[in-house]
Amino acid sequence: MSKFVKFSKLRSATDSTFWAKFVELKIDKFKLDEKSISIWGSYGLQSLNEDNSNPLTLDFTSFNEDVETVDNSLSVLCCGRMINTNTFEAFRQINPEKFIDSMGKDVINSIQDGTALQSPWKLSLFLVLAYSDLKKYKFYYWVAHPTPLRLPEMYYEESPKSINEEFRAKHVEDLCQGFLQLDSRTKNYFTVLLSEGDKMIIVDLATGVKAINTSNEKQSQEYNEIYFAFYDPCATSNPGWPLRNLLCLLCWHCPTYYFSKVIKFISIRGNKAQKSLVFAFRSRHYENYKNERDSLFLSNLVGWESNLNDKLGPTIVNLSDTMDPAKLSDRAVNLNLKLMKWRLVPHLDLEKIYNLKCLLLGAGTLGCAVARVLLGWGVNNITFVDNSNVSHSNTVRQSLYSHQDAVKHKYKAYAAKDAVLNIRPSINAEGVVLHIPMPGHVVGESMLESTKKSLEKLEELVENSDVVFLLLDSREARWLPTVLCAAKNKIAINAALGFDSYTVQRHGTRNFTNPISPDLEVRNPRGVDLGCYFCNDVTQPGNSQTDRTVDQQCTVSRPGLSQIAAGLAVELLITLLQHPLGIEAEALVRRDNISPSDTDLVGLLGCVPHTIRGSLWNYDTHLTITHRFTSCTACSVPIVAEYKNRGLSFVLDACNMPNYLEKLSGLEQILKRPDLDELCYALDNTSDDDEDDKKI
Amino acid sequence: MSKFVKFSKLRSATDSTFWAKFVELKIDKFKLDEKSISIWGSYGLQSLNEDNSNPLTLDFTSFNEDVETVDNSLSVLCCGRMINTNTFEAFRQINPEKFIDSMGKDVINSIQDGTALQSPWKLSLFLVLAYSDLKKYKFYYWVAHPTPLRLPEMYYEESPKSINEEFRAKHVEDLCQGFLQLDSRTKNYFTVLLSEGDKMIIVDLATGVKAINTSNEKQSQEYNEIYFAFYDPCATSNPGWPLRNLLCLLCWHCPTYYFSKVIKFISIRGNKAQKSLVFAFRSRHYENYKNERDSLFLSNLVGWESNLNDKLGPTIVNLSDTMDPAKLSDRAVNLNLKLMKWRLVPHLDLEKIYNLKCLLLGAGTLGCAVARVLLGWGVNNITFVDNSNVSHSNTVRQSLYSHQDAVKHKYKAYAAKDAVLNIRPSINAEGVVLHIPMPGHVVGESMLESTKKSLEKLEELVENSDVVFLLLDSREARWLPTVLCAAKNKIAINAALGFDSYTVQRHGTRNFTNPISPDLEVRNPRGVDLGCYFCNDVTQPGNSQTDRTVDQQCTVSRPGLSQIAAGLAVELLITLLQHPLGIEAEALVRRDNISPSDTDLVGLLGCVPHTIRGSLWNYDTHLTITHRFTSCTACSVPIVAEYKNRGLSFVLDACNMPNYLEKLSGLEQILKRPDLDELCYALDNTSDDDEDDKKI
Repeated sequence: MSKFVKFSKLRSATDSTFWAKFVELKIDKFKLDEKSISIWGSYGLQSLNEDNSNPLTLDFTSFNEDVETVDNSLSVLCCGRMINTNTFEAFRQINPEKFIDSMGKDVINSIQDGTALQSPWKLSLFLVLAYSDLKKYKFYYWVAHPTPLRLPEMYYEESPKSINEEFRAKHVEDLCQGFLQLDSRTKNYFTVLLSEGDKMIIVDLATGVKAINTSNEKQSQEYNEIYFAFYDPCATSNPGWPLRNLLCLLCWHCPTYYFSKVIKFISIRGNKAQKSLVFAFRSRHYENYKNERDSLFLSNLVGWESNLNDKLGPTIVNLSDTMDPAKLSDRAVNLNLKLMKWRLVPHLDLEKIYNLKCLLLGAGTLGCAVARVLLGWGVNNITFVDNSNVSHSNTVRQSLYSHQDAVKHKYKAYAAKDAVLNIRPSINAEGVVLHIPMPGHVVGESMLESTKKSLEKLEELVENSDVVFLLLDSREARWLPTVLCAAKNKIAINAALGFDSYTVQRHGTRNFTNPISPDLEVRNPRGVDLGCYFCNDVTQPGNSQTDRTVDQQCTVSRPGLSQIAAGLAVELLITLLQHPLGIEAEALVRRDNISPSDTDLVGLLGCVPHTIRGSLWNYDTHLTITHRFTSCTACSVPIVAEYKNRGLSFVLDACNMPNYLEKLSGLEQILKRPDLDELCYALDNTSDDDEDDKKI
Repeated sequence: MSKFVKFSKLRSATDSTFWAKFVELKIDKFKLDEKSISIWGSYGLQSLNEDNSNPLTLDFTSFNEDVETVDNSLSVLCCGRMINTNTFEAFRQINPEKFIDSMGKDVINSIQDGTALQSPWKLSLFLVLAYSDLKKYKFYYWVAHPTPLRLPEMYYEESPKSINEEFRAKHVEDLCQGFLQLDSRTKNYFTVLLSEGDKMIIVDLATGVKAINTSNEKQSQEYNEIYFAFYDPCATSNPGWPLRNLLCLLCWHCPTYYFSKVIKFISIRGNKAQKSLVFAFRSRHYENYKNERDSLFLSNLVGWESNLNDKLGPTIVNLSDTMDPAKLSDRAVNLNLKLMKWRLVPHLDLEKIYNLKCLLLGAGTLGCAVARVLLGWGVNNITFVDNSNVSHSNTVRQSLYSHQDAVKHKYKAYAAKDAVLNIRPSINAEGVVLHIPMPGHVVGESMLESTKKSLEKLEELVENSDVVFLLLDSREARWLPTVLCAAKNKIAINAALGFDSYTVQRHGTRNFTNPISPDLEVRNPRGVDLGCYFCNDVTQPGNSQTDRTVDQQCTVSRPGLSQIAAGLAVELLITLLQHPLGIEAEALVRRDNISPSDTDLVGLLGCVPHTIRGSLWNYDTHLTITHRFTSCTACSVPIVAEYKNRGLSFVLDACNMPNYLEKLSGLEQILKRPDLDELCYALDNTSDDDEDDKKI
C-alpha cells in the first residue's frame, strides 16, 4: 500500500501593529462587545522565510473593512473571524473544541452551499481567540485553521514532482504568470486545465468542478489534464494544511471523481509560484463512498496552531517593552477615560476635553492640584501663570514640585510646566512668569512699562484660552482676570480656601447687548444671570497683603482642603462642558427633586451648581447662588466697557485710585441709597456671604 | 583748646544660627507675639578681626534665658532687647527715633537708679529691630546701642598712651590677668585702682565711684590713681562707643569729679587686653555743672548702627541660599503647619501627627493622593504596600509617579517611596512589594510559602503602624487588613471610589472583652460600636476580579474623585487624632445642632463622622453610620479569635473554602432565620446600603 498523505500545519504571526490597531478599536469602537469580528490575514509573497515557509500575517490592515483598500497585489488573502474576550477568565474558560466547531461552521457551509466555489478565500477561513490586557499591553491569542477531522484518507499515487518535471517550460511560465495575475483573494485555490490544444488555462474552482462533473456525466473529458491548485505556505515535502479543505470540497462536489480517480494537485510555493510541487493522490476504495461523503461534515473540526513551544495552546505577546514609551504613554493616558465610554457614559465627548485650552492663574497648592485633575481628564493644553519661585515650604503641599525645584529656586510656572511634561511628555504645556496688576497695589512710574507688558501678555493668554482658573493667593489678584474673562466671555472657574472651608465657583456669562438686571426669583438661573467672585461685594477689592502676618500671607489651610477644592473645581468644569447648555446650564441649588429628564438642569455627567461651599469642620457642603450684580466692581457693564475703551489706563486707575471701581460701577451710588438695608436684605436672601470662606 | 573726644561707632554681626534659632522660636513659641524679648550679644575674645575690631556677635546662644549656660569665659556679654514685627509694613512704619528713645530707657534707668554700678552689662544694652520673612528666610534688621545724644563734652588732656607706656610691666600683667578673670558680664566696665602701696587692684564700678565720692568728701584720696576701664571693641585711635554710657554714669554719680578733674580711662583692647590704651580726658568747664548733669537724660537717645553700605538703615540677610537645603526643607515643611498654631488652633498637637506611623495598603490613585495629604500634614513615617508596577496609564492619575517610572516598570511601592523622599528628603518612608491574600482567591500548593511570608510581613507591618489606610483596588483585598486591624486594634481608614461617588470611613475599635451587641438606638455611637467596611455585608467577600472586564478592573472614576476622597480620608484621620476621645470619638450623623460644648462629639478640629459618602452627580454629601455587626465576616469575635488561634491556616481556609467565613462568623445561621426580613429592615434603618458607592 502506498504512502498515506499527511498535511503540514500552518503558522500565523501577529505583528505589533495588529495589536496596536486592535487596542484602538477595542477602546474606541468595540468596547464591551465580545461578538466575533471579521478580519483579514495574508501570506505576503515578497517576504518568505529562509525555509520558504510563509506565516499567515496579521497586521493593522487586518481590520480594514473594505478589502479593496488593502494593497494586496503581492499577497494571498484569507478571511478570518476574531473573538476577543473582555476578561482573562472568559478566555480561559472557552472550550477550544466547541469554539472551533461553532466558529468554523462557515467553512463547511461554504462548501455545502457551494459559495466556496466562487469565493475560494472562504475555504481558508482562520479563527483568532484572544484576550487583550489593555492596561499592560499583553496579548493572549490562539489561531485556528478549521477543517473537518475526518477527511477520507488519500494516498500518494506517485512521488511529488516539481512543476519543472511535470510541465514544459512554457506551461511553467503560464502557471506562474497566471498565479500572480489572480486577485489576492482567489490566489488561495484555483483550477489549472491543460486543454486539448495543450494550452494551459487557469480557471476558478467552480469551473474545475463543473468540468469534472460534466466529464463524468458525458463520459468524455473536455480537457487533457486537470490540476487543482492551492497556495501552500508550508515548505515541507508534505502538502500544506490548506489542501484539506480543498479535498473536502472535491469530496463533496465531485464524490465519484474523488473516490475513483487519481487527482493531481499543484501546491503553489515560492513568491512567484516557481517552487511549486505537483502531487498525485488517490483515495482509498470504499464499498459505499456516498456514506463517506455524507459523514464528511459530521466530525468535529480541527486546526488549532501550536504555539512557539510547539504545544497546543495560546501565544502570549507582551508589547509593553517594545512599543515607543511616549506613544504608549499617550495611548495609555486615555485608556481610563475611554473606558468610561464603554459602559458608564457612552456619549462622553473626550475630544472636547482633550482640545480644551486651560489657563491656570496661580501655580501654588490649588494650581498644582487642578493641573493634576486636568491631566487625569486628558486635557492637552495647560498654561501656568505665576510669578513666584518654589520654596522649601511648598513642596509638601504643591504636588508638582520636588525638593530639587526648591533648592534651585525654580519659577513655579516653569517647574509646573516641566512637571506635567514629565508625567505626559506629549502634552502642550507652557509656563509664564507674570505679575498680575491688582487694585490697591499702586503702580509707580518705575513699574509702568512692566505693568503694560503684563497686561498685554495676560490679555493674550485669556484670549487664547477656553477656560481660566482663578487659583491665586489673594482676592485682588482675581480682579483683573475676572474683568478679562467677562470682556472676552471666557469660562472662569474660581477656587478659594479658608482654614477648613473652601469655595468653588463658576462665573456667569456676560451678554452685554442685554444688560438688564437678572430676575432674582428664578430658582435655577442660567449662566447669563450668575454672578462672579465679586458680585456680592459691597466694596472694591483692595490691597490685602499690606500688614499681614505670615500666617495670613500664606494660606494656612488644612492640607486635604486644596485637593478637595481642586477636584471639585475641575469636575465642575467637566460637568459643565458635557452639559448640553454648556456654561449656560441652569445652576443647581438644592439637592432634592432632581428629575433626570430636566435637561436644562441635568447634563451628561449630572448637575452644575454655581457655587459649592464645603467645610471640614462638619463635612457639610452647600450649593449656593450669587446673581449677576449690575454694579459689580469686576464684571458689570460700566467696568467692562471702560476696560474695553481705555485698556491699560483703566487698569492703572483701578490700581492707583482708591474707590475708582466703586464710582465707576455705580456701587458708590447704591451705598448712598436710603433703602440700602432693604437692598442688602434682598441680596442676602439670594446668596450667602462668602467672606468667611475666603482667606482668613 | 585741646581736642574734642569723638567715639568710634559699634558694629554688630548676626550669624545664621541666630536667625535659624529665631525662626524656630518665632514659629513655636513667640508666634504672633510682637513684644520685646531679652537676648544676649557677645564680643568674642578669641577671634578678633584683622584690624583688631570686634563686632557684637549674635548667634543661637543669644536666646539662652539662663546666661550661665553659655560658655562665656572668653567673651564679653552684653544684654539686649529685640523686637520682631509680624509684617514688613509694621517694620517700615516704626520710627527709629521713637524706638530707641523708648526701648533704650533701660540704660538711663540703670544709671539713675544705680543698678548699672553693680550690673555693668546694663550699660552696654543693645537693641534689635527686625522683620523676618519666615517663608523666604530673608531677614531685615537694625541694631542700636542707645546712649544720650547730649553728653557733656570731653577733651583730650594728653595723647592716648599704650598701657605699656602708662604702667610698669607688673601692672600691665596684673591688668591683663585681672580682666581675663572677670565674669563675662562684668568685663564691660570696671575700675582699676593703684593703691598707696602701688598695688594694682581691679574693682567694680560701684567701688570706683564710691572711692571717688569718698575722696571728694574727705578731701583725701584712698588710692594713688584711679582708672575707669571699659571693654572697647573698636580699634581706632578714638575711644569706642561704650565709653559714652560710662561717661554718663560718672557724670551722674560723681558730677563734681566729672566736671573738675582729669579722668583716666583704660580702653581694653585685644584678646588679652594687651593692646589696651589709656586716655586722659577733662570736661569743659561749666558755670553751673549741676544743670548739665540734670539735663543729661533729657535729650534723645542715639546709637543706630550703619549698615554695610555705611548708611543708617537696616541690613538685609538672605539665608535661603546659604542654609543646608535638606535642613531648610525640613524646617520649611512644618512652617505652614506651625502657623496654624499661631492663631487658628493653638492646641494643635503636631508632634502626634509627625510621629504617626502610617501604613498605606495600595499605592494607586488613592494611595498616592493620601500620601500627598499626609506629607502636607508633616507625617514623618509612611510605608507603602503594593504589588504592581507603574504602567503608562497610571501616571496622569497617580500623583507620585512620572513617565520614567512607567518606562522602567518600577514597582509602585518603591516608586512611591522614592517620590516622597524626593519631596521631603528627611522623611522615613518605606516601600514593600507584597500580595495580600484574599478570600475567594484560591491559594494553591505552589503559593503556600509566599502566602505564609506575605501574611507574616503584613502582620509585622500592621503591628508596627498606628494607622492603616485601606486603599486597595478590590473589596476582598481589604478583608485581611480589616481582620488584622481588628485583632491588633489599630486605626483603620477606608476609602473606595465609584464612577462619580466615593465612600470614606473609619473602622470602629474592637474591645473583645465585652462583645455584646451595640445599642442601635444611640444617636452618635462611639468608636467601639462602629462597624467596619464589611459590617453591613450579608455575604463574605469573594473573588471579584475573575471575569471582570477592563473597565471594571481598573476603577473607572472621574479623576477629581480620588483627590476628594483622599483629602477627606486624611482629614478624617487628623480630626480623629486631635479629638480628646481619639478613635472613640462619637460619630457625627446629621449636620444640624452641633453644640461646640459637646466635647464627646466636637474635637479640636471639628466632628468625626463614621462614613462620608459623596457624589459628583449632584455634589451631595451624606454622613452615615454602620454599627458594629456581631456576625461580621471580618471584625467579629469568632473571626478574630480564630485568626488569633490559627493564623496562617485560618487565612488559607478563608481564601480557599467557600462560605467558610459565613459559617464561622454566624452569618450563615442568621441568613436562615425566619425573622430575616425584620432583621434586615433594622439594619437598613441604621445605615444606607453602600454597595453603589463601591467599585462599579
